[in-house]
Amino acid sequence: MRDGVPRRNIKLLLSYDGTDFLGWQRQERSRTVQGVIEKALEKLHKRPVALAGSGRTDTGVHAAGQVANFYTSIDSMEAGRFVPALNSLLPRDVRVLEACQTRDDFHARFDARLRTYRYFFITRTHAVPWELRYAWHIRRQPDIQRLNQYARLFRGEMDCTSFAVPGDKSKSRCRYISGCCFFVERDRLVFEISANAFLWRMVRSIAGTLIRSEGKGLSTGDVREIIAGRNYALAGPTAPPEGLFLWDIDYSGKIVINL
Amino acid sequence: MRDGVPRRNIKLLLSYDGTDFLGWQRQERSRTVQGVIEKALEKLHKRPVALAGSGRTDTGVHAAGQVANFYTSIDSMEAGRFVPALNSLLPRDVRVLEACQTRDDFHARFDARLRTYRYFFITRTHAVPWELRYAWHIRRQPDIQRLNQYARLFRGEMDCTSFAVPGDKSKSRCRYISGCCFFVERDRLVFEISANAFLWRMVRSIAGTLIRSEGKGLSTGDVREIIAGRNYALAGPTAPPEGLFLWDIDYSGKIVINL
Repeated sequence: MRDGVPRRNIKLLLSYDGTDFLGWQRQERSRTVQGVIEKALEKLHKRPVALAGSGRTDTGVHAAGQVANFYTSIDSMEAGRFVPALNSLLPRDVRVLEACQTRDDFHARFDARLRTYRYFFITRTHAVPWELRYAWHIRRQPDIQRLNQYARLFRGEMDCTSFAVPGDKSKSRCRYISGCCFFVERDRLVFEISANAFLWRMVRSIAGTLIRSEGKGLSTGDVREIIAGRNYALAGPTAPPEGLFLWDIDYSGKIVINL
Repeated sequence: MRDGVPRRNIKLLLSYDGTDFLGWQRQERSRTVQGVIEKALEKLHKRPVALAGSGRTDTGVHAAGQVANFYTSIDSMEAGRFVPALNSLLPRDVRVLEACQTRDDFHARFDARLRTYRYFFITRTHAVPWELRYAWHIRRQPDIQRLNQYARLFRGEMDCTSFAVPGDKSKSRCRYISGCCFFVERDRLVFEISANAFLWRMVRSIAGTLIRSEGKGLSTGDVREIIAGRNYALAGPTAPPEGLFLWDIDYSGKIVINL
């Protein structure tokens, strides 16, 4: 409560096509996801409203299940009504999928326990525009068993320095990875990784490194050395943003770890 | 052959995301599909090259299988090499899927025997941006059996005046429809229609009319009257462009008609 007005805390489930956004975070003069949603919230509330996201996504990165929250002073509106109300004000490349009232002290970023990303690959020689917009076209069929041998090295508490861009200012480069695997869905190859948090560009760096390692026929031991080397120069190229989706944010704390 | 240079006739299979194009047809100062491909051809040939398409698509309409042809004076290049050569010069929202040498007098437009379009609908309440870009979000699950009862009225030689925009300047508004049906693919409702040719906006007018007819509970007889009325005022609203894909162009002449 502030200014004597009771405020309800509203949690949003969001989806966006990152292609035409300069990432999540609000910026002067640039089209960002946070920026366009805050603009819609301002129209609805007739005053500025701050939106907190579970984390930032980079330019060109998509989201299937981003979570964010804001405080509303509109008493008359049932929380679920924010779905059509916001969608009618938002461009088609951002959609609110769900809206619900949550506990007053819920924070989309600080309360997130587990973040899951998916990275999509097209392995066929030819791809159509609506595939290229949402996947990396690698034009070859990698050995998925081999990729999963590499993926199993990414489990538990890990120093991720090899996948941090040089100059990364994070206090610690250790992250807790609870799941990492490759699978095929329809005709796309998918890389899925879950962790308590990620370093900047870390998912794309791991995706790029593992695909290159497979291409070069590296052994699991070779990849283990890339990880242990704690040196970005050992990692492969960073995979392009269009293949990456922020997939799911888990707030339950019931993390299942497959070691 | 012209200027003494032998020219090979090259047939292209094309796919494009129509969202950011002002349709197929070349225009001064506007981004069109024909325009960007001709620009790529000009770069490759170092002189202007005309591209003939099977037909125009409107602003925002996509293509999974558009066909076009052009004459090349580049002797040194195997026809299939135009696929990577053009794709490397084209934006990501247009892709060349196949290129092959064809008979000298082949014309993508005049030789087309059958054109097939698909129109996609999302019936769920919620849709994500990568669905909304390629479908019409009608937010309800229509009765497909009923829709197919309507669809069966669209067979054979038909006067399509009810689905022609007022002022349509076609010499004749009769078209030969060889297939028309609704089906479900994955979680999308699909409307597919094949004909020798279509009037401007005809597919979107039929799609919009049949969906509205189902929503209003019209009988098959009512829809038959809309067709027989030869009056655009009887037709439903024109469905939006984002759901429409030019799906396939058939040159074989072996048309299978299911009456």
